[in-house]
Amino acid sequence: MTDARHVELAHGNGGRFMRELIEAVFARHLANPGLDAGLETGLDIGLDAAPIGLEAGFVPYITTDAFTVQPLEFPGGDIGSLAVNGTVNDLAVAGATPKYLTLNAIIEEGLEVACLERIVRSLAAAARDAGVCVVAGDTKVVPRGQGGGLYLATTGVGLRAAGCRLGLEQVRAGDALLVSGPVGDHGIAVMLAREDFDLKGSVASDCASVAPFTAPLATMPGVRFMRDPTRGGLATVAHEIAAATALTARLAEPSVPVRDAVRSVCEMLGYDPYYLACEGRVVAVVSPQVADDVLALWRALPGGADAAMIGRMIEGPAQVILETEIGGERVLEELEDDPLPRIC
Amino acid sequence: MTDARHVELAHGNGGRFMRELIEAVFARHLANPGLDAGLETGLDIGLDAAPIGLEAGFVPYITTDAFTVQPLEFPGGDIGSLAVNGTVNDLAVAGATPKYLTLNAIIEEGLEVACLERIVRSLAAAARDAGVCVVAGDTKVVPRGQGGGLYLATTGVGLRAAGCRLGLEQVRAGDALLVSGPVGDHGIAVMLAREDFDLKGSVASDCASVAPFTAPLATMPGVRFMRDPTRGGLATVAHEIAAATALTARLAEPSVPVRDAVRSVCEMLGYDPYYLACEGRVVAVVSPQVADDVLALWRALPGGADAAMIGRMIEGPAQVILETEIGGERVLEELEDDPLPRIC
Repeated sequence: MTDARHVELAHGNGGRFMRELIEAVFARHLANPGLDAGLETGLDIGLDAAPIGLEAGFVPYITTDAFTVQPLEFPGGDIGSLAVNGTVNDLAVAGATPKYLTLNAIIEEGLEVACLERIVRSLAAAARDAGVCVVAGDTKVVPRGQGGGLYLATTGVGLRAAGCRLGLEQVRAGDALLVSGPVGDHGIAVMLAREDFDLKGSVASDCASVAPFTAPLATMPGVRFMRDPTRGGLATVAHEIAAATALTARLAEPSVPVRDAVRSVCEMLGYDPYYLACEGRVVAVVSPQVADDVLALWRALPGGADAAMIGRMIEGPAQVILETEIGGERVLEELEDDPLPRIC
Repeated sequence: MTDARHVELAHGNGGRFMRELIEAVFARHLANPGLDAGLETGLDIGLDAAPIGLEAGFVPYITTDAFTVQPLEFPGGDIGSLAVNGTVNDLAVAGATPKYLTLNAIIEEGLEVACLERIVRSLAAAARDAGVCVVAGDTKVVPRGQGGGLYLATTGVGLRAAGCRLGLEQVRAGDALLVSGPVGDHGIAVMLAREDFDLKGSVASDCASVAPFTAPLATMPGVRFMRDPTRGGLATVAHEIAAATALTARLAEPSVPVRDAVRSVCEMLGYDPYYLACEGRVVAVVSPQVADDVLALWRALPGGADAAMIGRMIEGPAQVILETEIGGERVLEELEDDPLPRIC
C-alpha cells in the first residue's frame, strides 16, 4: 500500500492488500472462533460460511439492517456501535436472545484507516457488550465519490424461547403503552454532530443494546409486543401498532419522557420529538395488570430511571392521538418525509 | 412521491413513501411467509425479525457478502442475481443446502425505479431457482453522488449434514484439483459491459447457483474441499489452498477450461484469466480415487460439459505453479491489485 493512512481501491480487490487490511483492522478486533472460520481473509480459512450453534427449545430468528448514518461518529456512538445495536435490538424486541452477527463493510476509497479502525474497535466493543459473536464478514471498496465514507450492513441471528408468544396479534384494547426511556436522543445527537445549524449541544445518542430491558419480558405473561422506535420514532411505532390492530393508540404528551436539551432543539428547529429516532429504547404493549411490574423492573435497570407509561390502546379507528399538555388533542399523522434523514 | 420514476431521499426515511416503495418493488416480487414477518414495511408486520426453520441432523451455516458491481446490469446477470448466487454459492461450497436469505439495499437517490424493479425481479427469480426464501430485508436511500446506483448485501443461512467433513484440513498431497466449467466468464462479461475499452463481446457471465454441482459432493467420500473462485479467480483459490495446507498447487495450463472469447480479450488487454472472477463455478479438491466419478457426475449436469481436472496438490512449498502449454512453468503469485475491480 503506497499510502498507509487511507483506504485505497486495491484494498477491495481480493488480493494481498485486502487480506492485510482485514487482518490489521477487522480480524484483530473481532477475533473469535466463528470469525476465523467465516471471514474471507484468504488465510486461516476453512470455509466461507461459519457454523452457528443453536439450542433445543429455542427457535432461531434472523434480522438485517443497513447503516448509512452521517457523520460516521457522533456523541454516544458511531456507525459501528449503531450497526451492532440496531440489529441486536431488532432481535431483542422480537423476544430473541441475540447470538450471532455477520458484517458487511462498503468502504469509500480515501477513508482514513485510523477512522475505520476506531469504528471497528467500537463495533467489537458493542458486540461484546451485547453478547454476540461476529461470525462472518465481507468488505468492498468503492471509488471516491461513490460511498459516503463507510456503509455497514449487519445480519443477526438470535434464539427465541419456543414458548414466547410476543406479536401484534396479542394486543388488546385497554393495553398499556410503555417506553423504557427518553425519546429522540439519537436523532438530535446525530443532527447536532452534523453542525448544519451551527448549534452545539450536549445530547448523546442513546445507542445501546436493549436486551437487558427485553429479556425479562420475553416470556412474561401479559407482555404483548415490543418494538424499538428507530427511524420514524415513537409515532411510527404507534402507527404500526394501530394499523395492525385496528385500534387507536392514545398517548399522553406529559407522560412521554423527552430530555430538556432535546425539547429545546426541537422547539428551535420545529421538529417533533415523537418522530425522532431512538437507538436504545423499547416501546412495549402490556396488559394493564402487569404495567406497574414492568415499569418497576425497567426503572431498576441502569439507564431505566425514566421509563414511563405513556398511553393506552383503545377501541376506535386505527390512528394515533396525542393528548397535549394543555388538555387538547392532536392526531400524529403517518410520517411521509423525515426531517432528519441519514440517522441510521 | 413527486417523480414516480426515480428513487428520492424520502423513500428511505421510514415513513409512507418508504413503505410504498417496499410494497411496490420489493414485497411484490419477494412475497413469501417469512418475508411478511421480517420486512420492515410498517404494515403487515409482527416482528422485525423472522423465524427460520431448521432440521434435526443438520448444522446451520451462515455467510454474508456485499455487492458493488458496476454496471448494475450485464450480459448473463445483474447485481440482483449476483447478490443471490454469490451468497448461495458460499453456502453450497461449504457443503450446506442454502435455505434463507436476508437482503439489504442501499439505493442512491435518482436511481430509476424501473431499473430497481428489474433488479429485484431478477433477484427474486434467482432466489427461486436456488431454492432460498428472502426472509428479512432493509432499505436505505443515500444522496445523489454517494452511492453508485445500488449496493446490495445478502446474508445466507444453509443447512449442512452433521456428517459433512469438508474442510482444508482434509486436503492431502496427491489430491486432484477439479473445476466445474470455464473460468473468467463473469469478469470479462462485466468488463465488456462497461465499454471502457470500446470492445464489444458476446461473453455472458456464468452467474448461477452452484448447488447442483456441490450437493452431490457434500458427503461423498474422497471429496476434501470446495470453493467458488470469485474475486481473485482460480489463482486466488489455489493460493488459499496452498497456504492453508503447506502444499504446492500444480496446475496444467492446457487443462484449464477458458472460452476462446475470454482468452481473446485477455490477450488483447493483458489480463490473466486465472485471476478473473467466476460466479457460477466450483473448484474441488478430491482424492485421485474419486476424481473421475466427480468429473462424470459434473459433466452430466446442465452447464457442466467443460468440467475438467486441472491439476494436483503435491509436496513442496506453499505456492501455485502453472505448467504452461509449451512445457515451461510459471509461478502464479498472490494477487495484489485486481485489473478488474468492482466485478462483484
